[in-house]
Amino acid sequence: MTETRYDVIAIGNAIVDIMAASDDATIERLSLNKGGMTLVDADGARRLYEAMGPAKEISGGSAANTLAGLAALGAKCAFIGQVADDQFGRVFAHDIRAGGIDFDTPTREAEPPTAQCLIFVTPDAQRTMNTFLGASQYLPAAALDEQAIAAAKVLYLEGYLWDPEEPRAAMRRAIDAARRAGREVAFTLSEVFVIDRHGDDFRALIADGLIDVLFANHTELAALTGESDLEAGIAALKDKVPTLVVTCGAEGATALRKGERATVPSVATTVVDTTGAGDLFAAGFLHGHVAREPLERCLQRGAICAAEIISHYGARPEADLQALMAEKLG
Amino acid sequence: MTETRYDVIAIGNAIVDIMAASDDATIERLSLNKGGMTLVDADGARRLYEAMGPAKEISGGSAANTLAGLAALGAKCAFIGQVADDQFGRVFAHDIRAGGIDFDTPTREAEPPTAQCLIFVTPDAQRTMNTFLGASQYLPAAALDEQAIAAAKVLYLEGYLWDPEEPRAAMRRAIDAARRAGREVAFTLSEVFVIDRHGDDFRALIADGLIDVLFANHTELAALTGESDLEAGIAALKDKVPTLVVTCGAEGATALRKGERATVPSVATTVVDTTGAGDLFAAGFLHGHVAREPLERCLQRGAICAAEIISHYGARPEADLQALMAEKLG
Repeated sequence: MTETRYDVIAIGNAIVDIMAASDDATIERLSLNKGGMTLVDADGARRLYEAMGPAKEISGGSAANTLAGLAALGAKCAFIGQVADDQFGRVFAHDIRAGGIDFDTPTREAEPPTAQCLIFVTPDAQRTMNTFLGASQYLPAAALDEQAIAAAKVLYLEGYLWDPEEPRAAMRRAIDAARRAGREVAFTLSEVFVIDRHGDDFRALIADGLIDVLFANHTELAALTGESDLEAGIAALKDKVPTLVVTCGAEGATALRKGERATVPSVATTVVDTTGAGDLFAAGFLHGHVAREPLERCLQRGAICAAEIISHYGARPEADLQALMAEKLG
Repeated sequence: MTETRYDVIAIGNAIVDIMAASDDATIERLSLNKGGMTLVDADGARRLYEAMGPAKEISGGSAANTLAGLAALGAKCAFIGQVADDQFGRVFAHDIRAGGIDFDTPTREAEPPTAQCLIFVTPDAQRTMNTFLGASQYLPAAALDEQAIAAAKVLYLEGYLWDPEEPRAAMRRAIDAARRAGREVAFTLSEVFVIDRHGDDFRALIADGLIDVLFANHTELAALTGESDLEAGIAALKDKVPTLVVTCGAEGATALRKGERATVPSVATTVVDTTGAGDLFAAGFLHGHVAREPLERCLQRGAICAAEIISHYGARPEADLQALMAEKLG
């Protein structure tokens, strides 16, 4: 086996989030898909930005957020994703590297610009995301560093990036590279619309034994399995993926790993913005997972990270996550 | 007199703040001027950005922050300042307009990029600012909308922008336009280094009776008057400016207006980031001032706004300032 250089290497969208407080009347007036993630084109993004209040910009991207959490917890990480040669691209690259994450994917020189996600946060702390994928959706397989993938304990993939064609091909190749090196592949389903479009791919990857760790929330589990009941959904998958992690928002999370099962409640906090809750749950869980911690402990780490991220705006951690773990878990 | 369209029109730097948590060791290692504002060139900005942790981007600029506060309080405002044709320029323009502020200064097409301020926030909530002025420092007098200036009750100028040559000429012309229209001119001294370089200009403007409302903190007052004692500094200016406002951080603020004098304590809050404290104090004060409120009430509004801004990252208000005023002042 290649020498291990990373705990987790991830492939994901390289996005800057543009976040603003909003209200339900605005969500309705703009016909937004409240609580969901909707893809928009450049014109759509412009239109929505004009309708948005004063905002702040914070690096985002689902898998990139997970790595930011992992790196803050002390894991060694690398990110693969594509930005354009513009200010948002430099912001994204800065933030990921400043978090101690290796990031060497070449910048794309041509149009379109770096991906942006316009996020409307309502008073109920729900986030409504509208993503212009920009340069991110053209991540070529040639940009993969297969040696780095072979050198990581876990290859982590976000479902969002399965939608555009080029990154999908890149991710398939990355899965092969990880497998050849005897590494684990972790996958997050991301969003129901992705499962609606690519559920057959995901079911095939699972049937082929190519996914070792699967992250889903309750709705995504239902979309993938066709079982709206949580237990039925779990039953449909538990023998097909070695590690299954199902998050249920405020109701907590359940995981199954090789015959073992654990459930934890969510960690109480004042919820300000739910953006990144799943991403940071995955960060905490994976941090325990790569350290071969007991399943319940992995889930607890996930719940602690998720609680931190929803207590403030933005999907990148602000608190000292290592201190938080020490405080909460001793 | 021209019909009044605005309560306040301001000329200032059009800046996007890039803010990150830092520590005193970093401030020392980078030889930064803790608590101050230092101008940096493009290379300096690049070097500091590389040394900075994961950041967030929030529109800034001293006078622009003041207008954001004023507009949030319900005042009618317009901003004059120059951005470049880039993503940060679009962010700045979006945020100011989304706050309900008129902003029609043409975008500058050439290099350099939009102004950026790299802000290191230490655990003591102090902000250390390093500003690359970019397009902002080339604001031409031709960009002034003199009709808009004539239509505003108050022309508000930030001292920071007195430093570069073109905006200084533009501001002199703006003062003339305001005076011809019988309007008030308000000026904030911004920073000691500006007074060190341009104190003679400021003293001449004051001697010529061209400044109606002067904002200074204790240190700036000392630099301008040569009197380190607060009362001596006040005594040196009180007969030369119709309204003098002196802020003393946590010790509160004092104002003198045509024989009247008032002092208020600061408003207690959990201080997270002092960026924008003076800017938002000016917002609250001016909101009362244009409504011809008693001097003490103007200061109270300033203190409430300042407390809001230092309770979170960034120099743009997050709370509902009108609701806050109603709650605190009844």
